[in-house]
Amino acid sequence: MITALAGGVGAARLLRGMVDVVAPNDITAIINVGDDTDLHGLHISPDLDTVMYTLAGAINPETGWGLAGETWGVMEALRTLGGVTWFNLGDKDLATHCYRTQRLSEGAGLGVVTGELAASFGVGVHLVPVTDDPLRTRLLLEGGDEVGFQEYFVKLRHDVAVRQVRFAGSEAARPGPGVLEAIDTADVVVVCPSNPVVSIDPLLAVPGIRDALARRRDHTVAVSPIVAGAALKGPADRLLVEMGFESSVVGVARWYASWVSTLIVDESDADLASAVEAEGVRCIVAPTIMSDPDRSAALARVVLGAVG
Amino acid sequence: MITALAGGVGAARLLRGMVDVVAPNDITAIINVGDDTDLHGLHISPDLDTVMYTLAGAINPETGWGLAGETWGVMEALRTLGGVTWFNLGDKDLATHCYRTQRLSEGAGLGVVTGELAASFGVGVHLVPVTDDPLRTRLLLEGGDEVGFQEYFVKLRHDVAVRQVRFAGSEAARPGPGVLEAIDTADVVVVCPSNPVVSIDPLLAVPGIRDALARRRDHTVAVSPIVAGAALKGPADRLLVEMGFESSVVGVARWYASWVSTLIVDESDADLASAVEAEGVRCIVAPTIMSDPDRSAALARVVLGAVG
Repeated sequence: MITALAGGVGAARLLRGMVDVVAPNDITAIINVGDDTDLHGLHISPDLDTVMYTLAGAINPETGWGLAGETWGVMEALRTLGGVTWFNLGDKDLATHCYRTQRLSEGAGLGVVTGELAASFGVGVHLVPVTDDPLRTRLLLEGGDEVGFQEYFVKLRHDVAVRQVRFAGSEAARPGPGVLEAIDTADVVVVCPSNPVVSIDPLLAVPGIRDALARRRDHTVAVSPIVAGAALKGPADRLLVEMGFESSVVGVARWYASWVSTLIVDESDADLASAVEAEGVRCIVAPTIMSDPDRSAALARVVLGAVG
Repeated sequence: MITALAGGVGAARLLRGMVDVVAPNDITAIINVGDDTDLHGLHISPDLDTVMYTLAGAINPETGWGLAGETWGVMEALRTLGGVTWFNLGDKDLATHCYRTQRLSEGAGLGVVTGELAASFGVGVHLVPVTDDPLRTRLLLEGGDEVGFQEYFVKLRHDVAVRQVRFAGSEAARPGPGVLEAIDTADVVVVCPSNPVVSIDPLLAVPGIRDALARRRDHTVAVSPIVAGAALKGPADRLLVEMGFESSVVGVARWYASWVSTLIVDESDADLASAVEAEGVRCIVAPTIMSDPDRSAALARVVLGAVG
């Protein structure tokens, strides 16, 4: 049994490789909901959907988010009305959010609804939101404003300095159904190459999860989202520095050291292996850039062979 | 100044005729929101939208609701997800609901949001929801179940017996901004040919409105939605009988007599004019079937000449 901690695009690619290596049913992905947002009254869960769409083979391959073959009827009409359009939502994608919001309004938990959607999309991996409770990543900007994650990431294109990150609602949030069990019973806990600060840290902010993970440290392996000092996508590099860490595999090792025993770094970072190990984290060097499904599967094999 | 009490399709047609006769700016339409519903997290206001789309020349002429030239991307995808699809929502129409819901979530009142949408659609008539507060028409069915209006009207196709109608939220609802002023200052108050039981009655359920209307009885003229004993559209005939009234212009006159001084009935009901007047309501006979814009305008002229 494999349990993966997942953000969005990077996690989705590793999981896509993993299902080529082990049965989808043997994988549980615990997914970040700190990126979730409410727009137009709809509950939008970008990381859940990116993983689900990718595993369904339905993701838009050009953007890495949203659905292939989308139409944009709602957004075009909303633009003529002067509505909020900085967060682009395709018509098919909107159907997912309509479904989710309606079911939540009927009293279903986010975990149950996610299971229903995953079944509709034919996804065999267990997709589990880290919590059914509200949890929202909030970023305090240098200027003093605090914004939600999507406003930071999409509207401001993460081109602003961040002073502090917090996870609103985390004190009251409870691990979602199945989350702690999946951590406790996994043969391998995989930390996907997601943003440590805003994709993985929100998972750890839910009371009980950090402790559960720390108990499984020997079985926990992470893939560095930083390659040659930079994030392949998004602001992980910048945020690590803003949080007082290095933008390097060494910074990632330090960020994760208390609950991760092994870090897989890209070949381009081979020279930093001993510096990683100096942080108390075993270092494995392998090709980590998942530019196609074969490379994803190859990385998945390295990950699954790394511990246990 | 003209103030019209409006439901959906019938009201929209009369208002379309009225703007051919007087300046749109001189007309205020106080519109039913008892039909409003929340689906997929979206706030849907069918009567507001039917009137707005019709006055904008954007209505789907075949259905009488929704927008011309619609696409159905969201609904088709929602159907494959097994979502709630009995209430059909086109993509462009969804943009209206997205806009409304987002603005409401930002704290704007329904009246303000309606004004913004009407401006975007180029509608000059003042469209005013009867209240900004929640007001929901609920129907107690013979079987004992209570359902919301859209479930009755769309899902059950109003093909069920109704024992009782109530307007949830009416006790706490306050007249929307401008509503009482529009009634108090109108030269003519027009009751559009809408369903007396479920389109006009919810307006009167908002505290203060029935009294305001009663004070203007001499200036208030209604167009009968019942023609030759039947409703042109919808269940007005059946509901009048279920509420203990006749399905005829006489039943309509009796329903409205305490606050309406004049009833316009179709030529096919000319033989009932004296029975209408026996209810204490002056009767005017005219062609009332608005099968095209010219007939709508002709009826509007009769209405506006009827009192004052």
